[in-house]
Order: sequence, then structure tokens, then C-alpha cells
Amino acid sequence: MRIDTYFTVEEFDPATLDGAVVAVVDVVRATTTLVEALANGARGIYPTASTEEAVKLAHSLGREDTLLCGERKGSKVAGFDLGNSPREFTREAVQGKRLVMSTTNGTRALTKGQHGTRVLPCAFTNLSAVARSVGDADRLVVLCAGREGRFTLDDALCAGHLVRRVHGERECILNDASQAAGAWAGFRKPTRKFLETTEGGRALVEIGLGDDLEICAEVDRHDIVAELRDQVIVRAGD
Amino acid sequence: MRIDTYFTVEEFDPATLDGAVVAVVDVVRATTTLVEALANGARGIYPTASTEEAVKLAHSLGREDTLLCGERKGSKVAGFDLGNSPREFTREAVQGKRLVMSTTNGTRALTKGQHGTRVLPCAFTNLSAVARSVGDADRLVVLCAGREGRFTLDDALCAGHLVRRVHGERECILNDASQAAGAWAGFRKPTRKFLETTEGGRALVEIGLGDDLEICAEVDRHDIVAELRDQVIVRAGD
Repeated sequence: MRIDTYFTVEEFDPATLDGAVVAVVDVVRATTTLVEALANGARGIYPTASTEEAVKLAHSLGREDTLLCGERKGSKVAGFDLGNSPREFTREAVQGKRLVMSTTNGTRALTKGQHGTRVLPCAFTNLSAVARSVGDADRLVVLCAGREGRFTLDDALCAGHLVRRVHGERECILNDASQAAGAWAGFRKPTRKFLETTEGGRALVEIGLGDDLEICAEVDRHDIVAELRDQVIVRAGD
Repeated sequence: MRIDTYFTVEEFDPATLDGAVVAVVDVVRATTTLVEALANGARGIYPTASTEEAVKLAHSLGREDTLLCGERKGSKVAGFDLGNSPREFTREAVQGKRLVMSTTNGTRALTKGQHGTRVLPCAFTNLSAVARSVGDADRLVVLCAGREGRFTLDDALCAGHLVRRVHGERECILNDASQAAGAWAGFRKPTRKFLETTEGGRALVEIGLGDDLEICAEVDRHDIVAELRDQVIVRAGD
């Protein structure tokens, strides 16, 4: 297997996908939050690039069973039902619902990777399930959402742990980013305290959402695989 | 001091320079080679973005004292005096000469960082000299050349060692990339064998230039600071 990691969406050229399985990583917080939502019974998550698009889509889906979710600069969009904090996506809030979700970096990454043979949102919270689900693909692309086009430590660390889990079971060819992330993950485990030292984590602490990092750092909190199918993220196997 | 590392030129926005000292890193091989050239007595190095521009500039400088240097896909440009292999830039070849140098990734990085208060090309071969020269600047930007817009392991490792040396002597605020690179450099030393595992290193080995990596990996081979001044790289202090 070949494992190619990209620390920013910009580094990845979709024309090179060539039948790869794509894991999309946005630890703080899009992929953590959507895994939480699916684990708590959400029917499907519709990622959108803008809040305007989210509102339009929610209305066309029917507002009754649909929640509008999303953040700008970390905080809930005014008038939306939920923000982007995994702690909001409880069973009480999301079970049986469709979620239209507008996030900045996460949606961009999902869009750019959307033509993979499979597209698997990945967070620490479903790491082992994703690693198992990659199976014996010829190529895995690990696409980090980053932050406004720049490297982020939380995504790189998650990418590294995914690389180690997949690599540990077979012979792999690693690109430079896979090699760096994997090496680094070998001596660094995710913790809330560690995430608080990252740029994304610091920004959350500053707006009073530091508790989100407790969930973001919890490896294998859920044994579920999320998958993008026809523009909707659903629980695979459902 | 604030240390902001960028693993690709694309991640860096020159509008945010704000009085920073810039270290430009292109270990395999532009910065290694130009340090070698200055150590061996070259008068100045003129980086250019294209081979056409290089030819034009060499003629306007006067061909007698000027060497045309550069590579495309690793190999010497046809008709040029030298390629981009540090082993070519001996005292016999370069002493007293002006060097017009066309490289792909290195020149792009130098151009993007050119408005730093100081612009210091950095390789493993002059690592300590650069770290010392940064002095007590308020902000250091470490700009990795990367490879066709993508992360490279050799540049990231060199950036990490630079971060550790500068950080070791004072209190610093690190962006995510500085933190990741610094942590990783803590357990990984550059060696020829290690560079051979990187994408850039493998590409060199494939075209028969693997011996270049011996020099690229040699920490503090030279105690010299190179500096970009008015579009020319000279030895600082000269």
C-alpha cells in the first residue's frame, strides 16, 4: 500500500487521486463533531461551504427533521440550531435528524477529496475504525483540513496515528509527510492538555470552548466509520 | 521571540512578515549548494526563477567572471557551467566568481521571503551560524522551500533543528509547524542514510547523485552566514 499524507488541502491535487481511499482529518473540530453526531443517531450530515448554502439546503430538505449546524471563527452561527462543538451533538439533540453543517476548513477538505473510491472522515474518536475500514486498498490519501491553508498540529498528529495503525499491518510506501507524521505520532499521544498547546486548541480555549478538546483527544471513543456518499456523510454499514 | 515555520512556500503570506528575520531552507539542495559556494570563495549568488532569466543575467553581468548554474529535475541544465550539486562548487570552480543560479523551489522561497529584515539561506551545513545570527530578533520566519508546493522531510527536519537551537536559548512562542518540527528534530539527526529515505533524496539517488546527500546531511560543515541583499546572496560580514 502507498500512503500519501497532505498536511494542507492546497498540497493535494485531486487529479492524482487515482483510485485511492481518502481519509479526511479535521480534529478540531469538524470530523470529531460529525463522528459524535453519527454515533448519537444522526441520519446524515450534509457538509456545505457557506452558511447561506446551509440555510438554503436545510429548507429544501424540510426544516422539521433538519438541524442547521455550523461555526464561524469557532462560535455558533447566529440563528443556527447547533454550532460545531461535539458536546452539543447529544442523542437528545440529533437522533433521527438530518444535519446541514457549514464549517470552514473541514468542508473544503471533504470537497477536494470527494472523488476517492471511499471518503472517510477521520478523528481520534474513530481512529481504529477508520484504520480497519481502509482494508487492503492500494493507496490511502490522508487529507488534513489544516487551518486557513496552513499546517495544524492536531490534524498532523491524527494523520500520524492513522498512518501507524495502517502501516503496522502491512508493507507500505510512505510519502515524506506520512513518514514525518508517523514518526512523530510514535512518541506523542493526543491529550486535552496537548491539544491546548496547538493553535486551534488555543483559539478554542480563548472563546471558552476548551472543554471540546476533551472529546477531540479521546482515541476510539466510538467504533464507527463515517463515509461520504453522494454529498452526504452517513454511518457506513447503516 | 516568536518562531513561525512554514513547511511550504504557499502557506506563507508575505504580508504577515512584519519585521521578521527570514530563514529560507532548501536542504536538497539549493541552500546547501549556495553555502558551499560561498564557503569556497564565490563573490555572490544571483538566484533566478528561470533558465532564460539566468542566461540573460549572466550576459549582463559579464560572462568572464560569471558561472551559469542550475538544474531542472535534478540534473545540470544543458549548456550551463555547473548544476546544483554541492560537490561541483569547489574552490577551484567558484573562487572569485559570480554565480547565477536557477533552481526550482529554492528561488521561489527566497523571492517570497525577500522582504524580511534579514533573509538568511539555511542548510544543515551552516545551521549553528544561522541560529547565532538570528540573535534577539522579535520574530523568526522559517520558510521551507518544499517540493512543487508540497511538504518535504529534509526541509522540515532542518527547520526543526533550527527551531531547537534558537528556542533553546530563550522563551519562544511557536506556531504549530515550529512545534511539530522542533519535537521531531529532538529524536532525529540528519544522516545521509536518512535523507536517502526522503522523496527528494530518493530522486537524487535515482539520477546517480546520491553522494550529494553526504554533504547535505553534514551539520555545521561551514561556520558562515549567507544573506540575501539586493537580490544577491553574499557571505554576511564580507
